[in-house]
Amino acid sequence: MTYKVGILGATGAVGQEIIRLLHERSFPFSELKLLASPRSAGRTQSYKEHSWTIEATTEASFDDLDICIFSAGGDQSKHYAPIAQAAGCLVIDNSSAYRMDPKVPLVVPEINPQAALTHSGILANPNCSTAIALMGLYPLHKAFGLKKVIASTYQAVSGSGAEALKELEDQLHDWSKGKAYEPKVYPHPIAFNVIPHVDSFDEEGNTREELKLLNESQKILNLKTLSVSCTCVRVPVRRAHSISITASFEKAVDLDEARTAITEFKNVELVDDPQSLKYPMPLDYSERVPCGVGRIRATSVLENGLSFWVVGDQLWKGAALNAIQIAELLHEESKVHF
Amino acid sequence: MTYKVGILGATGAVGQEIIRLLHERSFPFSELKLLASPRSAGRTQSYKEHSWTIEATTEASFDDLDICIFSAGGDQSKHYAPIAQAAGCLVIDNSSAYRMDPKVPLVVPEINPQAALTHSGILANPNCSTAIALMGLYPLHKAFGLKKVIASTYQAVSGSGAEALKELEDQLHDWSKGKAYEPKVYPHPIAFNVIPHVDSFDEEGNTREELKLLNESQKILNLKTLSVSCTCVRVPVRRAHSISITASFEKAVDLDEARTAITEFKNVELVDDPQSLKYPMPLDYSERVPCGVGRIRATSVLENGLSFWVVGDQLWKGAALNAIQIAELLHEESKVHF
Repeated sequence: MTYKVGILGATGAVGQEIIRLLHERSFPFSELKLLASPRSAGRTQSYKEHSWTIEATTEASFDDLDICIFSAGGDQSKHYAPIAQAAGCLVIDNSSAYRMDPKVPLVVPEINPQAALTHSGILANPNCSTAIALMGLYPLHKAFGLKKVIASTYQAVSGSGAEALKELEDQLHDWSKGKAYEPKVYPHPIAFNVIPHVDSFDEEGNTREELKLLNESQKILNLKTLSVSCTCVRVPVRRAHSISITASFEKAVDLDEARTAITEFKNVELVDDPQSLKYPMPLDYSERVPCGVGRIRATSVLENGLSFWVVGDQLWKGAALNAIQIAELLHEESKVHF
Repeated sequence: MTYKVGILGATGAVGQEIIRLLHERSFPFSELKLLASPRSAGRTQSYKEHSWTIEATTEASFDDLDICIFSAGGDQSKHYAPIAQAAGCLVIDNSSAYRMDPKVPLVVPEINPQAALTHSGILANPNCSTAIALMGLYPLHKAFGLKKVIASTYQAVSGSGAEALKELEDQLHDWSKGKAYEPKVYPHPIAFNVIPHVDSFDEEGNTREELKLLNESQKILNLKTLSVSCTCVRVPVRRAHSISITASFEKAVDLDEARTAITEFKNVELVDDPQSLKYPMPLDYSERVPCGVGRIRATSVLENGLSFWVVGDQLWKGAALNAIQIAELLHEESKVHF
């Protein structure tokens, strides 16, 4: 079985990783159609010896596709996902548009693969920080029963797209040459700075990014009682998000059991030998499939409390990789067509 | 009344800020003696039109001094502080050597000035992250009664000294020229990275830096019941530490009261208008006396819970400034001589 696969938003930071990972992971596609805005149409995009002409997205773009991975923002998803679905094209959506829709499965394949099988043509990929945090939290939840999460993020600029990565690099090149730089993508300089502002603010002073960790975790873990406080911060890192987590569990937490739970979970690595200077860091988890968990230690500040640190590539596990893993899962279960 | 003032560790990042702030704040000194290791002795150090010859520290260095601010690490402090004390020279120590000594006051002048008056020749300056965190926590503690603190830090490289700042800058210059860079100060690259490792690790996997927030806060606030979990992280920022805090209080927290408490506290600024892109950031709090507090919001994850964000210059409020504020306080209270 092979599929005709499309990528909506193919020119973006995530889109390019999707192209790469479809090839590297040998996803069974017979054809790849790259869709973007009319502005990008006609341009050539290449990967190794392959190249494609970018096509402008239209309502007919999905008629000959089996699967389309959407990564072009919420407005594009809202408009085109129902059209693709009606054309029988499976949508795996990277935007937040459908994540909390009760009819749309929100899936991390290592965590809730069964949810994916209930789809009716649209599946949602979680927020990048949520996917990475849950890769550390879920094995501990299985072992001890998760109750509360307090998280602070250290988010890489490529999470804001290719132009944000360019902004950080341009700022630093200009700094190195003694030149001033006026920020365009972020409202403040990101070089030599940290910005406690990711996504837009609500009335109560939380960002939408911060609330996603609560809402999406509740849905993915099917755990309505979960309580979460999160502070999201942009840092001058190119790639891979890090998250500092303190969590409270139902059962007493045994540290050896916690480490075993992490070790035995798929696509997570335990990197927890701080005396030997081993803990996960973004430079070590860029362009890597697994997430890393370390700095595991007990804390009495919360009942059955544990503090730890998770790092993962937000363009991969937080976006492109997770989307392709969903497609792989549905392929294995013969559930791509609906 | 004027004082003969010494600085032990005058060539370091903090030492240089002490020289600057003694002048800028017009501390009443009649003479300034700069002490350092024999390696630096004979070199000239200057500030504006003033210059001094660095002297090698000896056991006789303190005989003609009224006050000496120590900033040369724990070993130097342990060796020389009792010698200075015996010579009648007041020691204000930036190292961790005496902080938890019950005979030594550990002082943030805005918080526990009365403790300073009980000194018998040695006073300790708190850890940088602790001083900055407490500038946000203390006014809230006074208003609502602090119970629990969960903190994650974003610590600037100059907290590790001048050579760490140089390391970040050299790495970025080399990156900008396409050259590789081998880290020397940190065990891993700090450019484009975050390192969840500040100070050395204990058996349980906490760093000493992380435990300081617990132990020093309990002592400064005189609050033995305080419970703290902290994760300390180095980020590629030149100057000013940021701290993400979620705290639990005895009394119900009213957000307006919380903002008023911050606004009315000395040397703290409320910067909390996120819709207008206003929140404290390290670039805005470098070389500034006040700390900034923002991102204040309620959270149900803890009883009477509040999340917020504090930023302050760790070379100033976290070290040089706080030390000089202690000297100023003792001068005002005629308690320099003992």
